[in-house]
Amino acid sequence: MDEGGVTEEEHEAMPPASRAIYFGSFLVTPQVFHTTAHSFALVNLKPLLPGHVLVCPKRQTPRFASLTPIETQDLFLTVQRVQRTLTRLYAATAFNVAIQDGEAAGQTVPHVHAHVIPRREGDMDKRGGGDKLYEMLEGEEGDVAASLREAGEAAELEGSGRGIRPDEGSRPARGEEEMRKEAEWLREEMMRDAEQ
Amino acid sequence: MDEGGVTEEEHEAMPPASRAIYFGSFLVTPQVFHTTAHSFALVNLKPLLPGHVLVCPKRQTPRFASLTPIETQDLFLTVQRVQRTLTRLYAATAFNVAIQDGEAAGQTVPHVHAHVIPRREGDMDKRGGGDKLYEMLEGEEGDVAASLREAGEAAELEGSGRGIRPDEGSRPARGEEEMRKEAEWLREEMMRDAEQ
Repeated sequence: MDEGGVTEEEHEAMPPASRAIYFGSFLVTPQVFHTTAHSFALVNLKPLLPGHVLVCPKRQTPRFASLTPIETQDLFLTVQRVQRTLTRLYAATAFNVAIQDGEAAGQTVPHVHAHVIPRREGDMDKRGGGDKLYEMLEGEEGDVAASLREAGEAAELEGSGRGIRPDEGSRPARGEEEMRKEAEWLREEMMRDAEQ
Repeated sequence: MDEGGVTEEEHEAMPPASRAIYFGSFLVTPQVFHTTAHSFALVNLKPLLPGHVLVCPKRQTPRFASLTPIETQDLFLTVQRVQRTLTRLYAATAFNVAIQDGEAAGQTVPHVHAHVIPRREGDMDKRGGGDKLYEMLEGEEGDVAASLREAGEAAELEGSGRGIRPDEGSRPARGEEEMRKEAEWLREEMMRDAEQ
């Protein structure tokens, strides 16, 4: 990663938002709202429901089983901390937590990522019921890669384009400014919870 | 839990299969094929795909965020170990790992459980494609509780019966003997991998 020639020390002193963070081959720095020793959390280009975010290990590896015990624990403690803040902000009473671990499971960005989706009773009633969410998640996986590609945030992507569904194209991708604002808001709210 | 009046020491000395293990209010001892300090893994009454299993914390709690750091790490290291054996036995090239964390996310047994579903390219082609798996998972969650209820393995279940889909009823529940044999096989194969 090119970090503009800063030293390791300067890099550590930078606020998280000014460090280059990659999700697969995609530069997602403005979308990142939380970082830990081994993980980061980012807002989604096309959230399936409000507050739908992704949590990833910093080390880029496609498969879940290749995470070390420390990385594995850090990833899910991060999921739990993120859940705490999302529960408050989105009045969530439940969550879907899902990893598509490998291409044959619908993974399109070869970098482990846990979907964290806040849920409320009846939240999918107007969108075809709870089952539909899973269908959208499969489509969304395609969108994660396809949308980032469209957004031109990175040139190279390994992958077959599997799971890209034209019928999901109606879900609008958000602008970088909107995501940056959401990430900033979530970052502040995460810090508020951490202080308690 | 009634463990027949055995001492803690006697209990620890017992082979896993002879200890009473509960998934929610359901006695699932014959289905359990792996136990660790804080987790257990069980075969499924109605697997969506071959090798579909569940991994749970020993401590019965409905919500993921209430797991301690130790329990959280142990749960996912168990998932990783289970994946290793399932990869070999089912020629899996990928996995879906999913937690329905709370009722509004489709959870029907109020005891944290991670679905671990081995995947292979094209495995869902004859069953409606990969999207269909998610739909079935939502239905299956209902089945987890409904089937165990039907099987009469326990009397009490908290829950609304939410997510039970009559159209999924055609997927046959397996007999206890079949599950016991599968659990025994998986237990041996897990030990084989552990020895390496």
